[in-house]
Amino acid sequence: MTDTKTIGISTGGGDCPGLNAVIRAATRAAILQYGWRVIGITDGLDGLIWPERSRELTMDSISGILPRGGTILGTTNRGNPLRYKVTENGCEVVRDLTPQIMENARKLGLDAVIIIGGDGTQAIGLELFRRGLKVVGVPKTIDNDLSATDVTFGFDTALHTCTDAIDKLFSTAESHHRIMVVEVMGRDAGWIALQAGLAGGAHVILIPEIQFNIRKVCDFILQRDHRGRKFTIVVVAEGIRPGSDLRASYEQEKRMYPRAGAAGNLIGDALGMHTKKDVRVTVLGHVQRGGSPSPFDRILSTRFGVEAVELIARGEFGKMVALRGRRVEAVDIAEACGAMKRVNPGGEMVRIARAIGVCFGD
Amino acid sequence: MTDTKTIGISTGGGDCPGLNAVIRAATRAAILQYGWRVIGITDGLDGLIWPERSRELTMDSISGILPRGGTILGTTNRGNPLRYKVTENGCEVVRDLTPQIMENARKLGLDAVIIIGGDGTQAIGLELFRRGLKVVGVPKTIDNDLSATDVTFGFDTALHTCTDAIDKLFSTAESHHRIMVVEVMGRDAGWIALQAGLAGGAHVILIPEIQFNIRKVCDFILQRDHRGRKFTIVVVAEGIRPGSDLRASYEQEKRMYPRAGAAGNLIGDALGMHTKKDVRVTVLGHVQRGGSPSPFDRILSTRFGVEAVELIARGEFGKMVALRGRRVEAVDIAEACGAMKRVNPGGEMVRIARAIGVCFGD
Amino acid sequence: MTDTKTIGISTGGGDCPGLNAVIRAATRAAILQYGWRVIGITDGLDGLIWPERSRELTMDSISGILPRGGTILGTTNRGNPLRYKVTENGCEVVRDLTPQIMENARKLGLDAVIIIGGDGTQAIGLELFRRGLKVVGVPKTIDNDLSATDVTFGFDTALHTCTDAIDKLFSTAESHHRIMVVEVMGRDAGWIALQAGLAGGAHVILIPEIQFNIRKVCDFILQRDHRGRKFTIVVVAEGIRPGSDLRASYEQEKRMYPRAGAAGNLIGDALGMHTKKDVRVTVLGHVQRGGSPSPFDRILSTRFGVEAVELIARGEFGKMVALRGRRVEAVDIAEACGAMKRVNPGGEMVRIARAIGVCFGD
Amino acid sequence: MTDTKTIGISTGGGDCPGLNAVIRAATRAAILQYGWRVIGITDGLDGLIWPERSRELTMDSISGILPRGGTILGTTNRGNPLRYKVTENGCEVVRDLTPQIMENARKLGLDAVIIIGGDGTQAIGLELFRRGLKVVGVPKTIDNDLSATDVTFGFDTALHTCTDAIDKLFSTAESHHRIMVVEVMGRDAGWIALQAGLAGGAHVILIPEIQFNIRKVCDFILQRDHRGRKFTIVVVAEGIRPGSDLRASYEQEKRMYPRAGAAGNLIGDALGMHTKKDVRVTVLGHVQRGGSPSPFDRILSTRFGVEAVELIARGEFGKMVALRGRRVEAVDIAEACGAMKRVNPGGEMVRIARAIGVCFGD
Repeated sequence: MTDTKTIGISTGGGDCPGLNAVIRAATRAAILQYGWRVIGITDGLDGLIWPERSRELTMDSISGILPRGGTILGTTNRGNPLRYKVTENGCEVVRDLTPQIMENARKLGLDAVIIIGGDGTQAIGLELFRRGLKVVGVPKTIDNDLSATDVTFGFDTALHTCTDAIDKLFSTAESHHRIMVVEVMGRDAGWIALQAGLAGGAHVILIPEIQFNIRKVCDFILQRDHRGRKFTIVVVAEGIRPGSDLRASYEQEKRMYPRAGAAGNLIGDALGMHTKKDVRVTVLGHVQRGGSPSPFDRILSTRFGVEAVELIARGEFGKMVALRGRRVEAVDIAEACGAMKRVNPGGEMVRIARAIGVCFGD
Repeated sequence: MTDTKTIGISTGGGDCPGLNAVIRAATRAAILQYGWRVIGITDGLDGLIWPERSRELTMDSISGILPRGGTILGTTNRGNPLRYKVTENGCEVVRDLTPQIMENARKLGLDAVIIIGGDGTQAIGLELFRRGLKVVGVPKTIDNDLSATDVTFGFDTALHTCTDAIDKLFSTAESHHRIMVVEVMGRDAGWIALQAGLAGGAHVILIPEIQFNIRKVCDFILQRDHRGRKFTIVVVAEGIRPGSDLRASYEQEKRMYPRAGAAGNLIGDALGMHTKKDVRVTVLGHVQRGGSPSPFDRILSTRFGVEAVELIARGEFGKMVALRGRRVEAVDIAEACGAMKRVNPGGEMVRIARAIGVCFGD
Repeated sequence: MTDTKTIGISTGGGDCPGLNAVIRAATRAAILQYGWRVIGITDGLDGLIWPERSRELTMDSISGILPRGGTILGTTNRGNPLRYKVTENGCEVVRDLTPQIMENARKLGLDAVIIIGGDGTQAIGLELFRRGLKVVGVPKTIDNDLSATDVTFGFDTALHTCTDAIDKLFSTAESHHRIMVVEVMGRDAGWIALQAGLAGGAHVILIPEIQFNIRKVCDFILQRDHRGRKFTIVVVAEGIRPGSDLRASYEQEKRMYPRAGAAGNLIGDALGMHTKKDVRVTVLGHVQRGGSPSPFDRILSTRFGVEAVELIARGEFGKMVALRGRRVEAVDIAEACGAMKRVNPGGEMVRIARAIGVCFGD
Repeated sequence: MTDTKTIGISTGGGDCPGLNAVIRAATRAAILQYGWRVIGITDGLDGLIWPERSRELTMDSISGILPRGGTILGTTNRGNPLRYKVTENGCEVVRDLTPQIMENARKLGLDAVIIIGGDGTQAIGLELFRRGLKVVGVPKTIDNDLSATDVTFGFDTALHTCTDAIDKLFSTAESHHRIMVVEVMGRDAGWIALQAGLAGGAHVILIPEIQFNIRKVCDFILQRDHRGRKFTIVVVAEGIRPGSDLRASYEQEKRMYPRAGAAGNLIGDALGMHTKKDVRVTVLGHVQRGGSPSPFDRILSTRFGVEAVELIARGEFGKMVALRGRRVEAVDIAEACGAMKRVNPGGEMVRIARAIGVCFGD
């Protein structure tokens, strides 16, 4: 093998603003810095199962994608190629497609593959690395819940979308003396709810990490009312941890209504019933995963993309780029996966929020 | 009475970006142009029931409100002062408070009152006018469903919010091969759904004015899929008119789930079931009623506010300002109320949408 | 000729948000409604001089362009093909390339051409129409100064950009007791300055249609100061009409400093000198011509694009689409060109602005 | 002195999004957490020279200020109270007003003062601290050039404004084959130019820390042209460091044209002359200092505000809050002042930019 390499890039999992910026930066660095060829692997790793779908990425084909949401490579819902759902003789069966993937990577001449994705995608990358594929990872999680990296791209953009929505609800709530409930993303970690709540000036923030008592939330709202503050903004994460007074209803709601909005609607109903105040619920849903990435996310994506190429150039495989403090570093994928970063109820952010009067219902 | 007048301003009904801009323009015109005094009537017409809550509006007190959502005057949920809910001896009873209102208007020295509000509020204004209050109306409807005026403030801003959400969902839908359903406002008229759908490039638009067949929508989506367009954006008004194949489920959904989101979630479930594709639903809710008004809405609000003052100066009461073509005119409140402007299924907008391939499911 | 047509689309002149939306709508309507072929003529009419540069527009090639600024077809700076600058034997000479254009249009099989552009571009289209090309026009002017149409796409988006800038300057001006001068587009017509000024709450608006006296502007600012309003927002059109006290300096400034910013900087200097207050100048420049089109502009562009195709279908050539009141109509290009729509100093908009206290310096 | 304190808050220097968020957070924490009184010192430290202008900040008076640009306390241009310009007998003389300030702080009962401001303001705070005032500092610099803190509020919002402008110019540049020059803030440090350039996908970035050769920039642009990339985005900091081929013109430009825009216009003229391409220049100016703070800036401001109150509670005066990595810490004001943080031409950010092909002209 000479110095001229061919590398592949793949994106997996849910949407996240900044994916295209990573693709662009890695492609530009590979071409301009090293003169390598770059192959865009389409639809997660499907492009290694059907290699004819993959295509070369050139300076032209990545032009203009920096500010765009989504991913020009696409992703898949079929999931794990180690346990891939295929239809054979009319039946859906599960196959391990790793051999095909390794074979096709060789046919495409891939010297290394950059895999951009979350926990699940990185675990697949790790398995492929163990079987001989030269893999480098770029972490992606819009919920900011990966412990290996201080922060990843997409989170800041999601904060913008949520904060903008809270700003819009604020004046209506104030003018119309209403309780406004906003459900934001975060099944297991409350980072978006906590930070968007702080940024939007929410009065109540309910997150998975802090068990709340709905009575305490109602008391807080009624005390506000009493002091002439006739409105309240409540930010609710998708995953909440109700105390005994609401837990049964929550389990029932999730069973009967297994859609986004379960947490927000439950809280809305409970607050309306107990406070006799007018309540409106907004469920932001996938709007939070879209949009043009913020400057912060574009810059971080660009750094990650370039550093992933540097890892390949230095021959450091089985590693993932990560932001530590102000520096981009490399960590072992094996170490990085699985460890979740959750809000520390005794940490600085929650302390700051309590200091300015935010109610967590505990 | 000399030339120096005292006028009151009141805002009623749901929130709508531009209310503060009307208040500001009317106050400035009254003070700067005519040297009148202006009284801000708080919380709908409550400020005429408890006149001590009303306060003078000065150049200072309206400074900086032009770009802000909500209304500095507040509104009320108690509704119609002709049938006002009051608590007497622990019981809620209904009273006609018109006499108090007329009396307090006299005590406050109000020569005229500008009433900013929707259909219901204008009907109350009309009744007060018939009983002797010198009333001038400013129409407000975020749904754009008032036939008396070509368009009112707030609608353009709502379009921005909805179009922005569709833009954000678009790239995710495309990258992830998904159906994205967005429920927007519009119980009786589909203006927001139709125009935001056109502006956002939606593929399917479902509105109250056009009965749809869910099978036709599914066929349309599957044909797109067949042509390689693996994603679809569906904009759904709150009020929809399902054909026989979905009507029963819709009625049941509305009964069991009387919250915002009924229409969007129903359509989402039905499309997911029939097309076997991944579906995500976003319910924008009250976010659509908030936010800083768009330039168009600020300018229209300013025109309405100034013209309302001009009507008072000319002694034309019982009238409402309205936009006709490019001009602001005065119409009788009596005529203006009640007539609803709905989307014409055979009109230009629907024709344009069909010409570029939008599916209405009919 | 059978019913199956081939049509061309061309964009000319300065940038304007909504060009891509017109291209998309016309292409979709031509393909989906009529089954026609559509050729994208590149770089103004250059694509008819070098027909090999032109390419077919398909459903795929226009996918995703609706929200994007610019034009996928490109434009040219070489200008008028009737007097085209070409380099022959090292010298730049001027040639009439109409014969080549007519010839190439025939070679490309174009049954009709939609020409999207401003006054100058439409005049060229008219000349080509007179020589036999079947031309349909779509008007474009970001300044909103075409009398044939009530409004065109791009203007509303430009208003957003300018209003957003004024909003940003407002709080700084207020906190820091400053005069903020913003120069916006408009050499001959003050529409953007007037409407953005109204939407942003500017205190002073200087436009080409109203001659101003800098002393009167200074007096106005000092009177504000005296009343405790220590800041002033001044919106200045590129083209201004200073009275005798500033005219000489303006002419000198334009000679010595023939760049964007001449008007804004001159006013800034004069106000600083006379009022002894701190002044800051912002020159928005081409930012006003870019960005994702607003919902209003996207819808108007879509209507224009579809209606242009309808004109071709009906065989009405030499016509241009135009917005009249709420309807899109067809007007003769011959009539439409040349007549400029300027702000009427005695009209409604200026009257409204004066009523709320805006100073025009007259 | 009992536990109940009275504290003052003051804002000094240029505008910066997030000032109101600091005021709000400090006031809320002081009132809700400790039960202290809070005095808003108006117009920099003028409110200590004329104490009757200062006023108490309550939960009500800070309501709704979180998302607003500017500062509700105002600032001053008179500058340093140690060398304050006052008019005596018609002459402007310079006085040291420290004695009055100390006296008035005592009269107002201030136990401590939070001073929010840049380098100059902190130096004044330090002097007052040395003379006995209990001062705590909050750093403010929109240019991000203070070495004591990793980043301060306002910078992220400025990046948004600049990136948004570059996004808007991008499609116009591409469609119209133009060179677009954008001048952004940064007299001594190129952080905004570098990061906004990266976020916006600029092709050329000129900053004070890297001397450039205009010929090299022109060559870069012409090579792009040659490869079919007919447009270029050039981001220019206010302060640039031209090599010998442009230095004389730059000095002359700054002398003859001592306004914002000198750097951008000079570069624009030079590029136009040498490349014969169409160039447009945008000078963003004070728009960059305004606007609603971004979520990141609101959260950082909130943390700074709360931590400043904590410093007072712990009796740590003469200190300034600062962000170090992910933590807010306290640093000596004496140490913090003066040391400027500039872009390291050999650091990570510049290396990343070069890797993706950005030209710095060196």
